[in-house]
Amino acid sequence: MDVGIVMGSDSDWPVMEQAADALEELGVGYEVGVVSAHRMPEQMLAYGREAAGRGLRVIIAGAGGAAHLPGMLAAVTPLPVVGVPVPLRHLDGMDSLLSIVQMPAGVPVATVSVGGARNAGLLAARILAAGTSEADLELRRRMVDFQENLRRVAEEKGARLAAARRHTTGFSA
Amino acid sequence: MDVGIVMGSDSDWPVMEQAADALEELGVGYEVGVVSAHRMPEQMLAYGREAAGRGLRVIIAGAGGAAHLPGMLAAVTPLPVVGVPVPLRHLDGMDSLLSIVQMPAGVPVATVSVGGARNAGLLAARILAAGTSEADLELRRRMVDFQENLRRVAEEKGARLAAARRHTTGFSA
Amino acid sequence: MDVGIVMGSDSDWPVMEQAADALEELGVGYEVGVVSAHRMPEQMLAYGREAAGRGLRVIIAGAGGAAHLPGMLAAVTPLPVVGVPVPLRHLDGMDSLLSIVQMPAGVPVATVSVGGARNAGLLAARILAAGTSEADLELRRRMVDFQENLRRVAEEKGARLAAARRHTTGFSA
Amino acid sequence: MDVGIVMGSDSDWPVMEQAADALEELGVGYEVGVVSAHRMPEQMLAYGREAAGRGLRVIIAGAGGAAHLPGMLAAVTPLPVVGVPVPLRHLDGMDSLLSIVQMPAGVPVATVSVGGARNAGLLAARILAAGTSEADLELRRRMVDFQENLRRVAEEKGARLAAARRHTTGFSA
Amino acid sequence: MDVGIVMGSDSDWPVMEQAADALEELGVGYEVGVVSAHRMPEQMLAYGREAAGRGLRVIIAGAGGAAHLPGMLAAVTPLPVVGVPVPLRHLDGMDSLLSIVQMPAGVPVATVSVGGARNAGLLAARILAAGTSEADLELRRRMVDFQENLRRVAEEKGARLAAARRHTTGFSA
Amino acid sequence: MDVGIVMGSDSDWPVMEQAADALEELGVGYEVGVVSAHRMPEQMLAYGREAAGRGLRVIIAGAGGAAHLPGMLAAVTPLPVVGVPVPLRHLDGMDSLLSIVQMPAGVPVATVSVGGARNAGLLAARILAAGTSEADLELRRRMVDFQENLRRVAEEKGARLAAARRHTTGFSA
Amino acid sequence: MDVGIVMGSDSDWPVMEQAADALEELGVGYEVGVVSAHRMPEQMLAYGREAAGRGLRVIIAGAGGAAHLPGMLAAVTPLPVVGVPVPLRHLDGMDSLLSIVQMPAGVPVATVSVGGARNAGLLAARILAAGTSEADLELRRRMVDFQENLRRVAEEKGARLAAARRHTTGFSA
Amino acid sequence: MDVGIVMGSDSDWPVMEQAADALEELGVGYEVGVVSAHRMPEQMLAYGREAAGRGLRVIIAGAGGAAHLPGMLAAVTPLPVVGVPVPLRHLDGMDSLLSIVQMPAGVPVATVSVGGARNAGLLAARILAAGTSEADLELRRRMVDFQENLRRVAEEKGARLAAARRHTTGFSA
Repeated sequence: MDVGIVMGSDSDWPVMEQAADALEELGVGYEVGVVSAHRMPEQMLAYGREAAGRGLRVIIAGAGGAAHLPGMLAAVTPLPVVGVPVPLRHLDGMDSLLSIVQMPAGVPVATVSVGGARNAGLLAARILAAGTSEADLELRRRMVDFQENLRRVAEEKGARLAAARRHTTGFSA
Repeated sequence: MDVGIVMGSDSDWPVMEQAADALEELGVGYEVGVVSAHRMPEQMLAYGREAAGRGLRVIIAGAGGAAHLPGMLAAVTPLPVVGVPVPLRHLDGMDSLLSIVQMPAGVPVATVSVGGARNAGLLAARILAAGTSEADLELRRRMVDFQENLRRVAEEKGARLAAARRHTTGFSA
Repeated sequence: MDVGIVMGSDSDWPVMEQAADALEELGVGYEVGVVSAHRMPEQMLAYGREAAGRGLRVIIAGAGGAAHLPGMLAAVTPLPVVGVPVPLRHLDGMDSLLSIVQMPAGVPVATVSVGGARNAGLLAARILAAGTSEADLELRRRMVDFQENLRRVAEEKGARLAAARRHTTGFSA
Repeated sequence: MDVGIVMGSDSDWPVMEQAADALEELGVGYEVGVVSAHRMPEQMLAYGREAAGRGLRVIIAGAGGAAHLPGMLAAVTPLPVVGVPVPLRHLDGMDSLLSIVQMPAGVPVATVSVGGARNAGLLAARILAAGTSEADLELRRRMVDFQENLRRVAEEKGARLAAARRHTTGFSA
Repeated sequence: MDVGIVMGSDSDWPVMEQAADALEELGVGYEVGVVSAHRMPEQMLAYGREAAGRGLRVIIAGAGGAAHLPGMLAAVTPLPVVGVPVPLRHLDGMDSLLSIVQMPAGVPVATVSVGGARNAGLLAARILAAGTSEADLELRRRMVDFQENLRRVAEEKGARLAAARRHTTGFSA
Repeated sequence: MDVGIVMGSDSDWPVMEQAADALEELGVGYEVGVVSAHRMPEQMLAYGREAAGRGLRVIIAGAGGAAHLPGMLAAVTPLPVVGVPVPLRHLDGMDSLLSIVQMPAGVPVATVSVGGARNAGLLAARILAAGTSEADLELRRRMVDFQENLRRVAEEKGARLAAARRHTTGFSA
Repeated sequence: MDVGIVMGSDSDWPVMEQAADALEELGVGYEVGVVSAHRMPEQMLAYGREAAGRGLRVIIAGAGGAAHLPGMLAAVTPLPVVGVPVPLRHLDGMDSLLSIVQMPAGVPVATVSVGGARNAGLLAARILAAGTSEADLELRRRMVDFQENLRRVAEEKGARLAAARRHTTGFSA
Repeated sequence: MDVGIVMGSDSDWPVMEQAADALEELGVGYEVGVVSAHRMPEQMLAYGREAAGRGLRVIIAGAGGAAHLPGMLAAVTPLPVVGVPVPLRHLDGMDSLLSIVQMPAGVPVATVSVGGARNAGLLAARILAAGTSEADLELRRRMVDFQENLRRVAEEKGARLAAARRHTTGFSA
């Protein structure tokens, strides 16, 4: 269990699920939970304080609006915390983004795009893969394969698009 | 000591000082402290948890950027929390404002304008003056006088402006 | 009747209703009305001027766009005024938010999030609960219970989420 | 005295003075005053209510932040109200602009650019010049001359610039 | 025919129609046309140049995106030009608003809210009613009645809302 | 084959197709492809490096979010690169626009509006038509015809709108 | 004289001068002028209409605020028009950018960054270098050299930075 | 040498230097370089491609405006890339932030605040400290000490502030 995925509310799950999916694709173990900064602050701090001791190596935290969860966890753990700005009904996630990314000097949060939970999972995997153990190096090789696969899929889609376009000479980049 | 004025960093003091000044003008007792949500989270929560028991009736909290202090205090106290968005070097306080005002349902923060610490002090006074004790009613009378004085000063400034403008017929509104 | 809930237009009611609901949950008496700053300015000022004398202790005011109602009421009453930015069809409530929160020094409005009427009701309850009468202290106890309940519900939802996630070891924070 | 120039605070005068200057250049009579919507709301409404009866034909109102003055005056007068968003220290006038321009259906404010008091004066003159009296038609002729002069000055500046540029063949548009 | 309503594209008509409706309610004569600044610039300038000579007294111009029509017309006519920012598919009308309102010194456009064509019609009526002829004074009386009617309708809606709210003591402001 | 139309993902095609359509209307040859800056960076650079040698004269590149494709291509080709900000699900294309247009000094991208792929095609045609060969001059004549046609269509739509408006005297601008 | 550099006001010259400098570095002939869309609209349109016939092949147009010059020129010429958003005192050029880039379908403007006049000059050179004459091909070779030089200067600066950093092992990329 | 600090231009150094300082405080080895995505794209890609093989474990990349460096490096390395939005002269870093954080699914960048290079250094240290080697665990202990020290300094500053405030009873949180 290397990664903890937490969110402020279970209504964030449809977004945050993509972080879990990415980790599964890469074979990384994770746990999932709701630890609201505003509704259960003590438990939230306890979760952060105990994370390293329980063996977690990265925390992924998603929240929306005045999104305090990622920053508060980063305040009580030495682990890297990845923050996912969850877009709410109004303001299109700009409030979530600024509330997460604009942390004061001393307490960083590794912020990804609005709704970018899939990238949060991939970033957590890269962080683990920056370790030097054999398992971490193996994960890095899987990440290299993953990136190679991204390239191949993009090329194939591009080829299909060029082929489908009538009156056009396609090209293979 | 009815009001606690806290801020995330002593660098917020030049802004937050205006809240203290407003309370002094109205004869309201207050205390001042630094309780950073990100640098001393346990103490911050303790401050919030104990505020009501120590006799505080309102908390004024100022913070900048990913400003989590007001919202985190509101999570652990039943007292009204007034949030002051302190502008930082970039983004002109828009990040501070959204991080404070966009709180999730269940945990309100009474937000004032960017840099609006003076109004935070006045709002705290109005909140106290909504009480029904003799002292609170007396404070309400002082608030009415304060507003009457605002009016008088604005009128006098207007009169001086009208008088100073050459080739113009001034008016007294 | 401690709280007056007013709005600029009856089309704001679907948003503002949540303030009333929150007050009912907490057993706080309130009244509801439409007092448009732009369409009935004299009545609007009269409402504000007379609110304290009629026994109201907090005003909640919602408005959208160039939202002048909360600020104008705050100008004529010593009571605390809670402002709710109602989002309109365009600009996602950013205009409503700035028109309400950016009040000049001297006349504060306690602003909540875009569409955050539920929090406006809860903030009004906290303000009342900052009083020192027996009834106010009893309300404060209900607010503490309310917050405790928020925590419990969030925990239960989190437990259900962790349980539902296949191939995952849940945790109880 | 056809035009009333009012502002929320005498600190707005360095911006609003340009409206007065424009009116003087065009020979339009005006008065100047401070009528704060927030600090002297009754007088503000009285000013608006009485403006038409006192013979004013246009009101220019400048205000900053949660700028309520132009809209509140428009609510109590049938006269056209020109609104000038005065930029404050933060947010670059965007709050002032949205607070003035986003008026609800029924109560228009003729909004000019952030800090655009000179254009407010010129717009007031155009409004007067839309009348059909001999004096109004004479003002319209002065406006035509004013525009012709704008053109001439712009051309001369352009000619000087083209002449000053070394190694360049200027042109006369 | 006192008012010319023009727009950059016939796709703007569903928005701009509300300007025409407002003028009809007030008995003001108007004409409607499409004069695109970008697709028929010569005709657009000709329309502006000839407007005053043809007897028009106010121009209402709506456009979206890089909305140049109101400003270009204002450049070639001494008449007051009312600009309506038409929202397009992206950016929620913020581009339209800034392109219309941020005119350089010398050439004002009287800007209304995003999509605020109804207010553009009402503003045009106020401008006409600022004239001193008998017909203009009669229009001003109709504007006063219009405002009185706004008030009455808002009051009635408010009364219905207060009556419909269960468990609540309504009030008549 | 004068123009290369590339995009970061085949999901951009519904937007980018309009660039291709515009080029076909003007008889300009083009090719279409997917060359993702982030998923196939080597191929992307190779595409840019070889474009001029393969006879392309203009590149149109569309991308969304952190849109790096147009700028990276501009870094490795001396050809003019036209950038199309493709709007994604959140932020309404503002991120795409700023990521494309705010290029550092030395490496320009010719940016069009959010989603403005049709204009990208037309801009590419204008760029080709700035050449001095007979074929380029012929294309310029087609562009003049195209603009004349824009005018005619706009006029006809305007005439229909004026005719359809009841109780209104239309005009032909 | 291949390029016309025009601006709305001579106050734009300190920004626009960088376009001229870039063209001089690349040996491209140009002319400079002031043609205000708002202060001399007829001359502005005449400039645009006659540009192609006078032998210009690209127009660079800079303007600020409600920046209409680039778009209006693009409406009356088949030449490519490069637009430079000049930042004014407020809003940091965001108004200028949106007013230039958000052109309607049919009339493109090749927009560069806020204040990006140097890139406007370089883009104009790339556009000319997309031609097929011997002179244009020679210009393309100069552009390739220019880009090579950018690279060399950036590398040298990087080397100096790495050398200057104490306690650090620099690298040569 | 665990961390590579790179930036698009040596003018970014005054910001980026703070990342280097943070790493030195924590005893982490690093290298510094300029690798412009736009001025030396081949070297930039080579730097990214070779980083892991050369033994780097984290890359910190700073860039401003259309900031493509962090994202392009992330495209060619499996290492975690930390992006620092460097604010430029206009738009206050909002363009830099969106260009870095809004990466497409598949290629994450760990983004910190506008100008937040110190936090980038601290985040890189946390990432290294997520490893499982003895050296990484030692670094994690230093990070815990660092956070403890942050707390102590914040508390001392708060105590000094409370002591300095006349007429106030300070508190120690």
